[in-house]
Amino acid sequence: MPMELRSGYVRASGYANKIRKVLFAITRGRAEPEEVVRAAAELNQYLFGKFQELGVRKEDVVRISIGFSIDGGKIIWDYDSLKIEVYRREEEKNLAQAMEEVEEREKALDEAIKELENLAERLRALSDEISEKVEKLKQEHSGLKLQVER
Amino acid sequence: MPMELRSGYVRASGYANKIRKVLFAITRGRAEPEEVVRAAAELNQYLFGKFQELGVRKEDVVRISIGFSIDGGKIIWDYDSLKIEVYRREEEKNLAQAMEEVEEREKALDEAIKELENLAERLRALSDEISEKVEKLKQEHSGLKLQVER
Amino acid sequence: MPMELRSGYVRASGYANKIRKVLFAITRGRAEPEEVVRAAAELNQYLFGKFQELGVRKEDVVRISIGFSIDGGKIIWDYDSLKIEVYRREEEKNLAQAMEEVEEREKALDEAIKELENLAERLRALSDEISEKVEKLKQEHSGLKLQVER
Amino acid sequence: MPMELRSGYVRASGYANKIRKVLFAITRGRAEPEEVVRAAAELNQYLFGKFQELGVRKEDVVRISIGFSIDGGKIIWDYDSLKIEVYRREEEKNLAQAMEEVEEREKALDEAIKELENLAERLRALSDEISEKVEKLKQEHSGLKLQVER
Repeated sequence: MPMELRSGYVRASGYANKIRKVLFAITRGRAEPEEVVRAAAELNQYLFGKFQELGVRKEDVVRISIGFSIDGGKIIWDYDSLKIEVYRREEEKNLAQAMEEVEEREKALDEAIKELENLAERLRALSDEISEKVEKLKQEHSGLKLQVER
Repeated sequence: MPMELRSGYVRASGYANKIRKVLFAITRGRAEPEEVVRAAAELNQYLFGKFQELGVRKEDVVRISIGFSIDGGKIIWDYDSLKIEVYRREEEKNLAQAMEEVEEREKALDEAIKELENLAERLRALSDEISEKVEKLKQEHSGLKLQVER
Repeated sequence: MPMELRSGYVRASGYANKIRKVLFAITRGRAEPEEVVRAAAELNQYLFGKFQELGVRKEDVVRISIGFSIDGGKIIWDYDSLKIEVYRREEEKNLAQAMEEVEEREKALDEAIKELENLAERLRALSDEISEKVEKLKQEHSGLKLQVER
Repeated sequence: MPMELRSGYVRASGYANKIRKVLFAITRGRAEPEEVVRAAAELNQYLFGKFQELGVRKEDVVRISIGFSIDGGKIIWDYDSLKIEVYRREEEKNLAQAMEEVEEREKALDEAIKELENLAERLRALSDEISEKVEKLKQEHSGLKLQVER
Protein backbone atom coordinates (compact mmCIF):
# COMPACT_ATOMS: atom_id res chain seq x y z
CA MET A 1 0.00 0.00 0.00
CA PRO A 2 1.58 3.28 -1.12
CA MET A 3 1.78 5.96 1.55
CA GLU A 4 3.05 9.51 1.60
CA LEU A 5 5.04 11.45 4.13
CA ARG A 6 4.46 15.20 4.18
CA SER A 7 6.74 17.16 6.47
CA GLY A 8 4.64 20.30 6.40
CA TYR A 9 6.45 23.62 6.74
CA VAL A 10 9.54 23.30 8.89
CA ARG A 11 12.60 25.36 9.62
CA ALA A 12 15.48 23.79 7.67
CA SER A 13 17.50 23.42 10.89
CA GLY A 14 14.86 21.02 12.22
CA TYR A 15 13.90 19.02 9.16
CA ALA A 16 15.43 15.75 10.42
CA ASN A 17 13.45 15.72 13.67
CA LYS A 18 10.29 16.66 11.85
CA ILE A 19 10.68 13.84 9.31
CA ARG A 20 11.14 11.35 12.12
CA LYS A 21 8.22 12.60 14.20
CA VAL A 22 5.86 12.56 11.24
CA LEU A 23 7.05 9.12 10.17
CA PHE A 24 6.42 7.77 13.67
CA ALA A 25 2.93 9.28 13.70
CA ILE A 26 1.83 7.96 10.30
CA THR A 27 3.36 4.46 10.61
CA ARG A 28 2.18 3.85 14.17
CA GLY A 29 1.39 0.17 14.63
CA ARG A 30 2.73 -0.78 11.19
CA ALA A 31 6.47 -0.59 11.69
CA GLU A 32 8.84 -1.27 14.56
CA PRO A 33 10.46 1.79 16.20
CA GLU A 34 13.90 0.56 15.10
CA GLU A 35 12.77 0.54 11.47
CA VAL A 36 11.20 3.99 11.75
CA VAL A 37 14.45 5.34 13.17
CA ARG A 38 16.46 3.65 10.44
CA ALA A 39 14.23 4.78 7.58
CA ALA A 40 14.08 8.35 8.88
CA ALA A 41 17.86 8.42 9.14
CA GLU A 42 18.20 7.11 5.58
CA LEU A 43 15.88 9.74 4.16
CA ASN A 44 17.41 12.50 6.26
CA GLN A 45 20.85 11.70 4.99
CA TYR A 46 19.60 11.87 1.41
CA LEU A 47 17.87 15.17 2.12
CA PHE A 48 21.03 16.56 3.68
CA GLY A 49 22.83 16.11 0.37
CA LYS A 50 19.98 17.66 -1.58
CA PHE A 51 19.83 20.67 0.75
CA GLN A 52 23.52 21.27 0.22
CA GLU A 53 23.05 21.15 -3.56
CA LEU A 54 20.18 23.62 -3.25
CA GLY A 55 22.12 25.93 -0.94
CA VAL A 56 19.46 25.71 1.77
CA ARG A 57 20.43 27.54 4.98
CA LYS A 58 19.17 26.56 8.43
CA GLU A 59 16.98 29.68 8.71
CA ASP A 60 15.11 28.92 5.47
CA VAL A 61 11.85 27.00 5.59
CA VAL A 62 11.38 23.76 3.70
CA ARG A 63 8.53 21.45 2.88
CA ILE A 64 9.14 17.87 1.84
CA SER A 65 6.89 15.15 0.53
CA ILE A 66 7.81 11.65 -0.52
CA GLY A 67 6.00 8.42 -1.21
CA PHE A 68 6.93 5.15 0.50
CA SER A 69 5.66 1.66 1.08
CA ILE A 70 5.96 -0.80 3.93
CA ASP A 71 6.96 -4.27 2.82
CA GLY A 72 7.55 -7.04 5.33
CA GLY A 73 7.92 -4.44 8.07
CA LYS A 74 10.48 -2.50 6.06
CA ILE A 75 9.94 1.10 4.98
CA ILE A 76 10.97 1.66 1.36
CA TRP A 77 11.26 5.24 0.10
CA ASP A 78 10.18 6.07 -3.44
CA TYR A 79 12.88 8.63 -4.13
CA ASP A 80 11.44 9.41 -7.56
CA SER A 81 8.42 10.93 -5.85
CA LEU A 82 10.45 13.24 -3.60
CA LYS A 83 9.38 16.90 -3.69
CA ILE A 84 11.31 19.63 -1.93
CA GLU A 85 10.06 23.18 -1.61
CA VAL A 86 12.37 25.85 -0.24
CA TYR A 87 11.22 29.19 1.13
CA ARG A 88 14.12 31.61 1.54
CA ARG A 89 14.10 33.71 4.66
CA GLU A 90 14.45 36.99 2.78
CA GLU A 91 11.40 36.24 0.64
CA GLU A 92 9.18 34.79 3.37
CA LYS A 93 10.17 36.79 6.40
CA ASN A 94 7.04 36.15 8.47
CA LEU A 95 7.02 32.43 7.68
CA ALA A 96 10.69 32.09 8.57
CA GLN A 97 10.22 33.88 11.85
CA ALA A 98 7.09 31.91 12.72
CA MET A 99 8.94 28.63 12.12
CA GLU A 100 11.79 29.82 14.27
CA GLU A 101 9.30 30.41 17.07
CA VAL A 102 7.87 26.93 16.58
CA GLU A 103 11.37 25.53 16.94
CA GLU A 104 11.84 27.44 20.20
CA ARG A 105 8.58 26.09 21.59
CA GLU A 106 9.59 22.56 20.63
CA LYS A 107 12.82 22.89 22.56
CA ALA A 108 10.84 23.87 25.66
CA LEU A 109 8.54 20.90 25.10
CA ASP A 110 11.55 18.61 24.75
CA GLU A 111 12.75 19.81 28.15
CA ALA A 112 9.38 19.10 29.75
CA ILE A 113 9.16 15.63 28.18
CA LYS A 114 12.72 14.88 29.28
CA GLU A 115 11.80 15.67 32.88
CA LEU A 116 8.74 13.48 32.62
CA GLU A 117 10.88 10.66 31.23
CA ASN A 118 13.17 10.88 34.23
CA LEU A 119 10.17 10.65 36.56
CA ALA A 120 8.84 7.65 34.62
CA GLU A 121 12.20 5.91 35.00
CA ARG A 122 12.26 6.59 38.72
CA LEU A 123 8.73 5.19 38.93
CA ARG A 124 9.79 1.96 37.25
CA ALA A 125 12.76 1.54 39.57
CA LEU A 126 10.57 2.21 42.60
CA SER A 127 7.87 -0.20 41.52
CA ASP A 128 10.53 -2.88 41.00
CA GLU A 129 11.80 -2.18 44.51
CA ILE A 130 8.29 -2.51 45.93
CA SER A 131 7.76 -5.83 44.13
CA GLU A 132 11.04 -7.16 45.47
CA LYS A 133 10.19 -6.08 49.00
CA VAL A 134 6.78 -7.76 48.79
CA GLU A 135 8.44 -10.91 47.45
CA LYS A 136 10.87 -10.92 50.37
CA LEU A 137 7.95 -10.44 52.74
CA LYS A 138 6.30 -13.46 51.14
CA GLN A 139 9.45 -15.55 51.39
CA GLU A 140 10.13 -14.90 55.05
CA HIS A 141 6.67 -14.27 56.45
CA SER A 142 4.08 -16.16 54.42
CA GLY A 143 3.11 -19.49 52.99
CA LEU A 144 2.12 -17.90 49.65
CA LYS A 145 3.29 -19.20 46.31
CA LEU A 146 6.53 -17.45 45.36
CA GLN A 147 7.57 -16.03 42.00
CA VAL A 148 10.12 -18.80 41.51
CA GLU A 149 7.38 -21.38 41.91
CA ARG A 150 5.22 -20.10 39.07
CA MET B 1 30.61 -23.07 56.85
CA PRO B 2 28.23 -25.22 58.91
CA MET B 3 24.88 -23.62 59.70
CA GLU B 4 21.82 -24.75 61.60
CA LEU B 5 18.13 -24.38 60.92
CA ARG B 6 15.88 -24.25 63.99
CA SER B 7 12.18 -24.28 63.25
CA GLY B 8 11.18 -23.17 66.70
CA TYR B 9 7.84 -24.40 68.04
CA VAL B 10 5.32 -24.87 65.26
CA ARG B 11 2.00 -26.59 64.83
CA ALA B 12 2.65 -29.81 62.91
CA SER B 13 0.14 -28.76 60.24
CA GLY B 14 2.36 -25.83 59.35
CA TYR B 15 5.85 -27.25 59.65
CA ALA B 16 6.59 -27.09 55.90
CA ASN B 17 5.86 -23.37 55.61
CA LYS B 18 7.81 -22.67 58.76
CA ILE B 19 10.88 -24.56 57.52
CA ARG B 20 10.82 -22.62 54.28
CA LYS B 21 10.34 -19.21 55.91
CA VAL B 22 13.14 -19.80 58.39
CA LEU B 23 15.43 -21.12 55.65
CA PHE B 24 14.78 -18.00 53.56
CA ALA B 25 15.52 -15.75 56.53
CA ILE B 26 18.79 -17.40 57.54
CA THR B 27 20.21 -17.89 54.02
CA ARG B 28 19.30 -14.43 52.75
CA GLY B 29 21.92 -13.28 50.29
CA ARG B 30 23.74 -16.62 50.28
CA ALA B 31 21.45 -18.81 48.18
CA GLU B 32 19.14 -18.24 45.21
CA PRO B 33 15.40 -18.36 45.92
CA GLU B 34 15.04 -21.38 43.63
CA GLU B 35 17.60 -23.28 45.70
CA VAL B 36 15.93 -22.31 48.98
CA VAL B 37 12.60 -23.55 47.64
CA ARG B 38 14.20 -26.78 46.44
CA ALA B 39 16.10 -27.46 49.64
CA ALA B 40 13.07 -26.71 51.82
CA ALA B 41 10.97 -29.07 49.73
CA GLU B 42 13.60 -31.79 50.04
CA LEU B 43 13.77 -31.50 53.82
CA ASN B 44 10.01 -31.20 54.16
CA GLN B 45 9.48 -34.39 52.22
CA TYR B 46 11.94 -36.19 54.48
CA LEU B 47 10.20 -34.79 57.57
CA PHE B 48 6.84 -35.87 56.23
CA GLY B 49 7.99 -39.49 56.30
CA LYS B 50 9.47 -39.11 59.78
CA PHE B 51 6.26 -37.57 61.14
CA GLN B 52 4.26 -40.49 59.80
CA GLU B 53 6.61 -42.94 61.50
CA LEU B 54 6.24 -40.98 64.74
CA GLY B 55 2.46 -40.75 64.45
CA VAL B 56 2.50 -36.96 64.60
CA ARG B 57 -0.95 -35.40 64.12
CA LYS B 58 -1.50 -31.93 62.67
CA GLU B 59 -2.64 -30.52 66.00
CA ASP B 60 0.57 -31.58 67.80
CA VAL B 61 3.44 -29.15 68.09
CA VAL B 62 6.89 -29.97 66.75
CA ARG B 63 10.31 -28.46 66.90
CA ILE B 64 12.98 -29.33 64.38
CA SER B 65 16.66 -28.55 64.12
CA ILE B 66 19.11 -29.67 61.50
CA GLY B 67 22.58 -28.70 60.36
CA PHE B 68 23.38 -27.80 56.77
CA SER B 69 26.06 -26.24 54.65
CA ILE B 70 26.02 -24.14 51.49
CA ASP B 71 28.44 -25.33 48.87
CA GLY B 72 28.66 -23.66 45.48
CA GLY B 73 25.25 -22.11 46.04
CA LYS B 74 23.72 -25.47 46.94
CA ILE B 75 22.16 -26.20 50.32
CA ILE B 76 23.21 -29.59 51.68
CA TRP B 77 21.34 -31.01 54.66
CA ASP B 78 23.23 -32.93 57.29
CA TYR B 79 20.51 -35.48 58.02
CA ASP B 80 22.58 -37.09 60.77
CA SER B 81 22.17 -33.92 62.82
CA LEU B 82 18.37 -33.85 62.52
CA LYS B 83 16.50 -33.50 65.81
CA ILE B 84 12.73 -33.71 66.05
CA GLU B 85 10.80 -32.91 69.22
CA VAL B 86 7.10 -33.70 69.37
CA TYR B 87 4.69 -32.16 71.88
CA ARG B 88 1.38 -34.01 71.92
CA ARG B 89 -1.71 -31.88 72.20
CA GLU B 90 -3.07 -33.79 75.19
CA GLU B 91 0.13 -33.22 77.14
CA GLU B 92 0.77 -29.61 76.16
CA LYS B 93 -2.73 -28.20 75.85
CA ASN B 94 -1.81 -24.54 76.23
CA LEU B 95 1.12 -24.80 73.83
CA ALA B 96 -0.99 -26.59 71.22
CA GLN B 97 -3.73 -24.00 71.45
CA ALA B 98 -1.27 -21.11 71.32
CA MET B 99 0.31 -22.54 68.18
CA GLU B 100 -3.11 -22.96 66.62
CA GLU B 101 -3.74 -19.27 67.24
CA VAL B 102 -0.40 -18.40 65.67
CA GLU B 103 -1.43 -20.37 62.60
CA GLU B 104 -4.70 -18.44 62.39
CA ARG B 105 -2.90 -15.11 62.58
CA GLU B 106 -0.51 -16.22 59.86
CA LYS B 107 -3.41 -17.01 57.55
CA ALA B 108 -4.75 -13.48 58.07
CA LEU B 109 -1.27 -12.11 57.36
CA ASP B 110 -1.06 -14.21 54.19
CA GLU B 111 -4.30 -12.62 53.02
CA ALA B 112 -3.00 -9.12 53.66
CA ILE B 113 0.29 -9.83 51.88
CA LYS B 114 -1.59 -11.37 48.95
CA GLU B 115 -3.61 -8.16 48.56
CA LEU B 116 -0.43 -6.12 48.70
CA GLU B 117 1.14 -8.34 46.06
CA ASN B 118 -1.79 -7.71 43.74
CA LEU B 119 -1.36 -3.96 44.23
CA ALA B 120 2.37 -4.24 43.55
CA GLU B 121 1.63 -6.09 40.30
CA ARG B 122 -0.86 -3.43 39.24
CA LEU B 123 1.76 -0.81 40.01
CA ARG B 124 4.31 -2.48 37.77
CA ALA B 125 1.82 -2.75 34.92
CA LEU B 126 0.85 0.90 35.34
CA SER B 127 4.43 2.13 35.46
CA ASP B 128 5.15 0.17 32.26
CA GLU B 129 2.15 1.84 30.67
CA ILE B 130 3.39 5.28 31.73
CA SER B 131 6.86 4.58 30.31
CA GLU B 132 5.36 3.46 27.01
CA LYS B 133 3.18 6.54 26.80
CA VAL B 134 6.14 8.82 27.49
CA GLU B 135 8.14 6.98 24.84
CA LYS B 136 5.34 7.48 22.31
CA LEU B 137 5.21 11.16 23.26
CA LYS B 138 8.96 11.34 22.59
CA GLN B 139 8.63 9.57 19.24
CA GLU B 140 5.88 11.75 17.86
CA HIS B 141 6.46 15.06 19.61
CA SER B 142 10.12 15.45 20.45
CA GLY B 143 13.62 15.34 19.11
CA LEU B 144 14.86 13.43 22.18
CA LYS B 145 16.94 10.28 21.98
CA LEU B 146 14.62 7.27 21.91
CA GLN B 147 14.94 3.98 23.77
CA VAL B 148 15.77 2.11 20.56
CA GLU B 149 18.69 4.47 19.97
CA ARG B 150 20.43 3.72 23.24
CA MET C 1 -24.31 -5.20 70.05
CA PRO C 2 -22.04 -6.80 72.67
CA MET C 3 -18.67 -7.96 71.37
CA GLU C 4 -15.71 -9.69 72.93
CA LEU C 5 -12.00 -9.17 72.56
CA ARG C 6 -9.83 -12.25 73.13
CA SER C 7 -6.12 -11.62 73.10
CA GLY C 8 -5.19 -15.25 72.75
CA TYR C 9 -1.93 -16.39 74.32
CA VAL C 10 0.65 -13.67 74.31
CA ARG C 11 3.94 -12.98 75.99
CA ALA C 12 3.28 -10.46 78.78
CA SER C 13 5.90 -8.10 77.31
CA GLY C 14 3.77 -7.75 74.19
CA TYR C 15 0.25 -7.68 75.53
CA ALA C 16 -0.37 -4.02 74.61
CA ASN C 17 0.48 -4.48 70.93
CA LYS C 18 -1.57 -7.67 70.80
CA ILE C 19 -4.64 -5.98 72.31
CA ARG C 20 -4.43 -3.20 69.76
CA LYS C 21 -3.90 -5.49 66.77
CA VAL C 22 -6.80 -7.72 67.75
CA LEU C 23 -9.04 -4.73 68.42
CA PHE C 24 -8.24 -3.31 64.98
CA ALA C 25 -9.01 -6.65 63.34
CA ILE C 26 -12.37 -7.24 65.04
CA THR C 27 -13.68 -3.65 64.78
CA ARG C 28 -12.61 -3.12 61.19
CA GLY C 29 -15.11 -0.86 59.44
CA ARG C 30 -17.03 -0.12 62.65
CA ALA C 31 -14.74 2.29 64.47
CA GLU C 32 -12.34 5.01 63.41
CA PRO C 33 -8.62 4.26 63.79
CA GLU C 34 -8.29 7.10 66.31
CA GLU C 35 -10.95 5.51 68.51
CA VAL C 36 -9.35 2.06 68.25
CA VAL C 37 -6.03 3.52 69.31
CA ARG C 38 -7.67 5.40 72.19
CA ALA C 39 -9.70 2.43 73.42
CA ALA C 40 -6.73 0.07 73.21
CA ALA C 41 -4.61 2.54 75.17
CA GLU C 42 -7.32 2.84 77.83
CA LEU C 43 -7.60 -0.92 78.29
CA ASN C 44 -3.85 -1.41 78.18
CA GLN C 45 -3.34 1.12 80.95
CA TYR C 46 -5.92 -0.69 83.06
CA LEU C 47 -4.25 -4.03 82.35
CA PHE C 48 -0.86 -2.59 83.25
CA GLY C 49 -2.13 -1.92 86.79
CA LYS C 50 -3.68 -5.35 87.06
CA PHE C 51 -0.48 -7.08 85.90
CA GLN C 52 1.48 -5.24 88.57
CA GLU C 53 -0.98 -6.37 91.24
CA LEU C 54 -0.68 -9.93 89.96
CA GLY C 55 3.12 -9.79 89.82
CA VAL C 56 3.18 -10.70 86.13
CA ARG C 57 6.67 -10.60 84.61
CA LYS C 58 7.37 -9.87 80.94
CA GLU C 59 8.43 -13.47 80.26
CA ASP C 60 5.15 -14.92 81.54
CA VAL C 61 2.34 -15.63 79.13
CA VAL C 62 -1.08 -14.05 79.55
CA ARG C 63 -4.49 -14.43 78.00
CA ILE C 64 -7.07 -11.70 78.27
CA SER C 65 -10.73 -11.51 77.35
CA ILE C 66 -13.12 -8.65 77.83
CA GLY C 67 -16.53 -7.65 76.53
CA PHE C 68 -17.20 -4.28 74.91
CA SER C 69 -19.76 -2.45 72.88
CA ILE C 70 -19.57 0.22 70.21
CA ASP C 71 -21.94 3.10 70.78
CA GLY C 72 -22.00 6.10 68.46
CA GLY C 73 -18.57 5.13 67.17
CA LYS C 74 -17.18 4.90 70.68
CA ILE C 75 -15.73 1.68 72.13
CA ILE C 76 -16.92 1.06 75.69
CA TRP C 77 -15.18 -1.63 77.71
CA ASP C 78 -17.19 -3.79 80.06
CA TYR C 79 -14.56 -4.07 82.77
CA ASP C 80 -16.74 -6.41 84.84
CA SER C 81 -16.32 -9.05 82.17
CA LEU C 82 -12.51 -8.86 82.13
CA LYS C 83 -10.74 -12.20 82.51
CA ILE C 84 -7.00 -12.48 82.88
CA GLU C 85 -5.14 -15.80 82.81
CA VAL C 86 -1.48 -15.88 83.71
CA TYR C 87 0.89 -18.71 82.78
CA ARG C 88 4.14 -18.46 84.72
CA ARG C 89 7.28 -19.23 82.76
CA GLU C 90 8.49 -21.84 85.25
CA GLU C 91 5.25 -23.79 85.00
CA GLU C 92 4.75 -23.51 81.25
CA LYS C 93 8.28 -23.58 79.93
CA ASN C 94 7.44 -24.63 76.37
CA LEU C 95 4.59 -22.17 76.07
CA ALA C 96 6.74 -19.32 77.38
CA GLN C 97 9.53 -20.13 74.97
CA ALA C 98 7.16 -20.51 72.03
CA MET C 99 5.63 -17.10 72.76
CA GLU C 100 9.09 -15.59 72.98
CA GLU C 101 9.80 -16.94 69.51
CA VAL C 102 6.55 -15.47 68.23
CA GLU C 103 7.63 -12.11 69.60
CA GLU C 104 10.95 -12.40 67.78
CA ARG C 105 9.23 -13.18 64.50
CA GLU C 106 6.91 -10.22 64.97
CA LYS C 107 9.86 -7.90 65.37
CA ALA C 108 11.27 -9.13 62.07
CA LEU C 109 7.85 -8.62 60.47
CA ASP C 110 7.70 -5.09 61.89
CA GLU C 111 11.02 -4.36 60.20
CA ALA C 112 9.77 -5.63 56.86
CA ILE C 113 6.52 -3.66 57.11
CA LYS C 114 8.47 -0.53 58.09
CA GLU C 115 10.57 -0.84 54.93
CA LEU C 116 7.44 -1.29 52.86
CA GLU C 117 5.91 1.78 54.46
CA ASN C 118 8.93 3.84 53.47
CA LEU C 119 8.58 2.63 49.89
CA ALA C 120 4.86 3.45 49.92
CA GLU C 121 5.65 6.97 51.11
CA ARG C 122 8.24 7.44 48.38
CA LEU C 123 5.67 6.22 45.88
CA ARG C 124 3.15 8.82 47.00
CA ALA C 125 5.71 11.61 46.77
CA LEU C 126 6.75 10.45 43.31
CA SER C 127 3.20 10.18 42.02
CA ASP C 128 2.52 13.70 43.29
CA GLU C 129 5.61 14.88 41.44
CA ILE C 130 4.43 13.20 38.24
CA SER C 131 0.99 14.80 38.55
CA GLU C 132 2.54 18.21 39.03
CA LYS C 133 4.81 17.77 36.04
CA VAL C 134 1.89 16.71 33.85
CA GLU C 135 -0.08 19.73 35.08
CA LYS C 136 2.81 22.04 34.18
CA LEU C 137 3.00 20.38 30.76
CA LYS C 138 -0.71 21.09 30.34
CA GLN C 139 -0.32 24.73 31.42
CA GLU C 140 2.52 25.58 29.10
CA HIS C 141 1.99 23.23 26.18
CA SER C 142 -1.69 22.40 25.84
CA GLY C 143 -5.17 23.82 25.59
CA LEU C 144 -6.53 21.21 28.04
CA LYS C 145 -8.68 22.09 31.01
CA LEU C 146 -6.45 22.70 34.01
CA GLN C 147 -6.92 21.53 37.59
CA VAL C 148 -7.70 25.07 38.75
CA GLU C 149 -10.53 25.25 36.24
CA ARG C 150 -12.39 22.22 37.54
CA MET D 1 8.62 45.27 37.32
CA PRO D 2 7.18 45.74 33.83
CA MET D 3 6.97 42.61 31.71
CA GLU D 4 5.79 41.90 28.20
CA LEU D 5 3.78 39.07 26.73
CA ARG D 6 4.49 38.28 23.07
CA SER D 7 2.17 35.70 21.54
CA GLY D 8 4.35 35.10 18.54
CA TYR D 9 2.62 34.16 15.28
CA VAL D 10 -0.52 32.18 15.91
CA ARG D 11 -3.56 31.15 13.94
CA ALA D 12 -6.43 33.45 15.01
CA SER D 13 -8.53 30.40 15.94
CA GLY D 14 -6.02 29.50 18.63
CA TYR D 15 -5.00 32.87 20.03
CA ALA D 16 -6.66 32.31 23.43
CA ASN D 17 -4.79 29.07 24.15
CA LYS D 18 -1.54 30.62 22.97
CA ILE D 19 -1.95 33.67 25.23
CA ARG D 20 -2.55 31.40 28.21
CA LYS D 21 0.33 29.05 27.49
CA VAL D 22 2.79 31.90 27.00
CA LEU D 23 1.53 33.68 30.13
CA PHE D 24 2.03 30.48 32.16
CA ALA D 25 5.55 30.08 30.80
CA ILE D 26 6.71 33.64 31.47
CA THR D 27 5.09 34.05 34.91
CA ARG D 28 6.14 30.66 36.23
CA GLY D 29 6.81 30.91 39.95
CA ARG D 30 5.56 34.51 40.15
CA ALA D 31 1.79 34.07 39.97
CA GLU D 32 -0.68 31.45 41.13
CA PRO D 33 -2.24 29.28 38.41
CA GLU D 34 -5.70 30.68 39.27
CA GLU D 35 -4.45 34.21 38.63
CA VAL D 36 -2.80 33.21 35.34
CA VAL D 37 -6.04 31.63 34.19
CA ARG D 38 -8.02 34.69 35.25
CA ALA D 39 -5.67 37.21 33.66
CA ALA D 40 -5.46 35.23 30.40
CA ALA D 41 -9.26 35.06 30.27
CA GLU D 42 -9.53 38.81 30.85
CA LEU D 43 -7.09 39.65 28.06
CA ASN D 44 -8.60 37.07 25.72
CA GLN D 45 -12.05 38.55 26.16
CA TYR D 46 -10.68 42.00 25.33
CA LEU D 47 -8.87 40.62 22.28
CA PHE D 48 -12.03 38.87 21.14
CA GLY D 49 -13.76 42.26 20.87
CA LYS D 50 -10.80 43.81 19.07
CA PHE D 51 -10.64 40.93 16.56
CA GLN D 52 -14.30 41.42 15.75
CA GLU D 53 -13.75 45.13 15.15
CA LEU D 54 -10.80 44.29 12.90
CA GLY D 55 -12.73 41.59 11.00
CA VAL D 56 -10.17 38.93 11.85
CA ARG D 57 -11.17 35.46 10.66
CA LYS D 58 -10.04 32.24 12.34
CA GLU D 59 -7.78 31.30 9.40
CA ASP D 60 -5.83 34.57 9.57
CA VAL D 61 -2.64 34.75 11.57
CA VAL D 62 -2.19 37.24 14.39
CA ARG D 63 0.60 38.43 16.59
CA ILE D 64 -0.06 40.16 19.86
CA SER D 65 2.16 41.91 22.35
CA ILE D 66 1.18 43.66 25.54
CA GLY D 67 2.92 44.93 28.64
CA PHE D 68 1.86 43.92 32.13
CA SER D 69 2.99 44.03 35.71
CA ILE D 70 2.53 41.71 38.66
CA ASP D 71 1.47 43.51 41.82
CA GLY D 72 0.74 41.60 45.01
CA GLY D 73 0.36 38.41 42.99
CA LYS D 74 -2.09 40.06 40.61
CA ILE D 75 -1.42 40.39 36.88
CA ILE D 76 -2.32 43.86 35.58
CA TRP D 77 -2.48 44.39 31.82
CA ASP D 78 -1.27 47.66 30.36
CA TYR D 79 -3.89 47.90 27.62
CA ASP D 80 -2.32 51.07 26.24
CA SER D 81 0.69 49.04 25.18
CA LEU D 82 -1.34 46.44 23.29
CA LYS D 83 -0.16 45.79 19.73
CA ILE D 84 -2.07 43.56 17.34
CA GLU D 85 -0.72 42.52 13.94
CA VAL D 86 -3.01 40.72 11.53
CA TYR D 87 -1.79 38.66 8.57
CA ARG D 88 -4.66 37.87 6.18
CA ARG D 89 -4.69 34.41 4.74
CA GLU D 90 -4.89 35.63 1.16
CA GLU D 91 -1.79 37.79 1.58
CA GLU D 92 0.29 35.35 3.60
CA LYS D 93 -0.73 32.00 2.20
CA ASN D 94 2.32 30.04 3.33
CA LEU D 95 2.27 31.53 6.82
CA ALA D 96 -1.45 30.81 7.20
CA GLN D 97 -1.03 27.23 6.11
CA ALA D 98 2.01 26.69 8.31
CA MET D 99 0.11 27.98 11.34
CA GLU D 100 -2.79 25.69 10.50
CA GLU D 101 -0.36 22.76 10.56
CA VAL D 102 0.99 23.90 13.91
CA GLU D 103 -2.56 23.91 15.25
CA GLU D 104 -3.09 20.34 14.01
CA ARG D 105 0.10 19.15 15.71
CA GLU D 106 -0.97 20.82 18.94
CA LYS D 107 -4.24 18.94 18.90
CA ALA D 108 -2.36 15.66 18.60
CA LEU D 109 -0.11 16.75 21.48
CA ASP D 110 -3.18 17.62 23.56
CA GLU D 111 -4.44 14.07 23.02
CA ALA D 112 -1.15 12.55 24.12
CA ILE D 113 -0.97 14.76 27.23
CA LYS D 114 -4.60 13.93 28.08
CA GLU D 115 -3.75 10.21 28.02
CA LEU D 116 -0.74 10.84 30.22
CA GLU D 117 -2.89 12.81 32.65
CA ASN D 118 -5.27 9.87 32.95
CA LEU D 119 -2.36 7.56 33.72
CA ALA D 120 -1.04 10.02 36.32
CA GLU D 121 -4.46 10.07 37.99
CA ARG D 122 -4.59 6.28 38.06
CA LEU D 123 -1.13 6.27 39.59
CA ARG D 124 -2.20 8.58 42.39
CA ALA D 125 -5.26 6.47 43.14
CA LEU D 126 -3.14 3.31 43.16
CA SER D 127 -0.47 4.77 45.39
CA ASP D 128 -3.18 5.88 47.83
CA GLU D 129 -4.53 2.33 47.79
CA ILE D 130 -1.08 0.92 48.51
CA SER D 131 -0.57 3.33 51.41
CA GLU D 132 -3.93 2.37 52.88
CA LYS D 133 -3.17 -1.32 52.57
CA VAL D 134 0.20 -0.88 54.26
CA GLU D 135 -1.50 1.11 57.02
CA LYS D 136 -4.02 -1.70 57.53
CA LEU D 137 -1.16 -4.19 57.63
CA LYS D 138 0.46 -2.06 60.32
CA GLN D 139 -2.76 -1.81 62.33
CA GLU D 140 -3.51 -5.51 62.38
CA HIS D 141 -0.09 -7.11 62.15
CA SER D 142 2.50 -4.81 63.67
CA GLY D 143 3.43 -2.78 66.69
CA LEU D 144 4.56 0.15 64.52
CA LYS D 145 3.47 3.72 65.08
CA LEU D 146 0.31 4.38 63.08
CA GLN D 147 -0.58 7.42 60.99
CA VAL D 148 -3.21 8.53 63.52
CA GLU D 149 -0.55 8.56 66.23
CA ARG D 150 1.73 11.03 64.47
